[in-house]
Amino acid sequence: MSEKMTKKIRIVKYIKSEREEISDLVAVERPLTLFVNDLELVTMICSPNSYTELAIGFLKSEGFIKAFSDIKDLLCQEDEGLIRFELETKVRQREGFLRRNLASCCGRGSANFYFVNDAREIRPLESVPEVMLSEQVGFLKEMENMSEIFQKTGGVHNAALAGKNLLVRFEDIGRHNAVDKIIGHACMNNLSLHDKSLLLSGRISSEIVIKAARASIPTIISRAAATDLAITMAEELNILLVGFVREERATIYTQSDRVKI
Amino acid sequence: MSEKMTKKIRIVKYIKSEREEISDLVAVERPLTLFVNDLELVTMICSPNSYTELAIGFLKSEGFIKAFSDIKDLLCQEDEGLIRFELETKVRQREGFLRRNLASCCGRGSANFYFVNDAREIRPLESVPEVMLSEQVGFLKEMENMSEIFQKTGGVHNAALAGKNLLVRFEDIGRHNAVDKIIGHACMNNLSLHDKSLLLSGRISSEIVIKAARASIPTIISRAAATDLAITMAEELNILLVGFVREERATIYTQSDRVKI
Repeated sequence: MSEKMTKKIRIVKYIKSEREEISDLVAVERPLTLFVNDLELVTMICSPNSYTELAIGFLKSEGFIKAFSDIKDLLCQEDEGLIRFELETKVRQREGFLRRNLASCCGRGSANFYFVNDAREIRPLESVPEVMLSEQVGFLKEMENMSEIFQKTGGVHNAALAGKNLLVRFEDIGRHNAVDKIIGHACMNNLSLHDKSLLLSGRISSEIVIKAARASIPTIISRAAATDLAITMAEELNILLVGFVREERATIYTQSDRVKI
Repeated sequence: MSEKMTKKIRIVKYIKSEREEISDLVAVERPLTLFVNDLELVTMICSPNSYTELAIGFLKSEGFIKAFSDIKDLLCQEDEGLIRFELETKVRQREGFLRRNLASCCGRGSANFYFVNDAREIRPLESVPEVMLSEQVGFLKEMENMSEIFQKTGGVHNAALAGKNLLVRFEDIGRHNAVDKIIGHACMNNLSLHDKSLLLSGRISSEIVIKAARASIPTIISRAAATDLAITMAEELNILLVGFVREERATIYTQSDRVKI
């Protein structure tokens, strides 16, 4: 196992209202950009190990290669998150793959955004609210109790929006979709989100933080873990991240001074 | 909750070597294609509810609209999995979104593949192997015991490949990435996959079944649930799907005659 797969960060842990500041390990999340015959093909957000296997598996899964021997040469620049392939066959850029646009990304101060539109358009949130932790724990529980499909099939993710009460809840087989349903509902009903919290059953990855930031949601509360990149972005954007929420404990990744017990 | 979010299917359940054929509920998974000003923008794979919220949330999250009032008109054709928007602003097709290519998809007999390349290129597997269930349960346990990062952070997915033994294991923050790492490793080492099984910590969605089929992996074993579309595709492609694997129980979704106790 590579050292870099996890990162030690300072978090605030609450156990039965006891505040403790400790070091904890989180999963590392990085962009990896594939070039094929000097063409920028795709950027994947992944764990930083086995880049070569991941990239070759992607080329195989997407039909760019049939066998390893189709690859004439490859160069993996791990530290830059780049991997370059030379293939026998000509490759055309295909629709449906996310590209990082490396050249245009360099203009911004923050290196944490991997897609240029995000770096351009997203700004830190202002005047963010305090959050009562016990209230959020109750909202999470309420969300899950309402989720019949999850209880019946175990196959979906839940997302909900809370203010003074649990306002709305959606489920979807996709984590991102459940969050987009929340954002769509808020947009349709002209809900102001700057004082709301986003509740999730699933993991907090950088993509979720980006969605929240674009929608001006200042708080994300989850049953599960956050990645290091999600935490770095959230810190930069003034978003409070709380993970591993249980009855009497929670992990505060960012903005811990906004949490009230 | 809409009726369509779950589907009743026939499964085979094993509890302590006792075989039982029963009806069970699985989460439904469907493609939803967004048109904006008559332009095909994206196809999402999602749960079939709240299509309008999902689509508007997507448009907002991706910066196509700022507010609900930017939408002049919308038409949701739920049964076809289509939603059409008329926006005030001009929209250009962007890279990075998966498009279904509706017109070209209709040529094939099976309506289950939502992307035209998959429908064209993937064929049912031939001469698929029998699988000893207890062995697979052991492999899954071995995979998880080896996963330090999962145990440390709770933030990653595991995938492994097994033959007579556990052959290789990868972890990633992304479910799909972990599977692509397996496929890349096999490609690099010229491993034949037609008698191997793919072990997963996470859910079996249609995208995982498609990856397995392209790599000729005949068996998928998971701790978690499968979706209805994954099951339908796996049946058509002769892939054995086993979910909810625990010490003394498992759910066989497809090809149950290949399971040996």
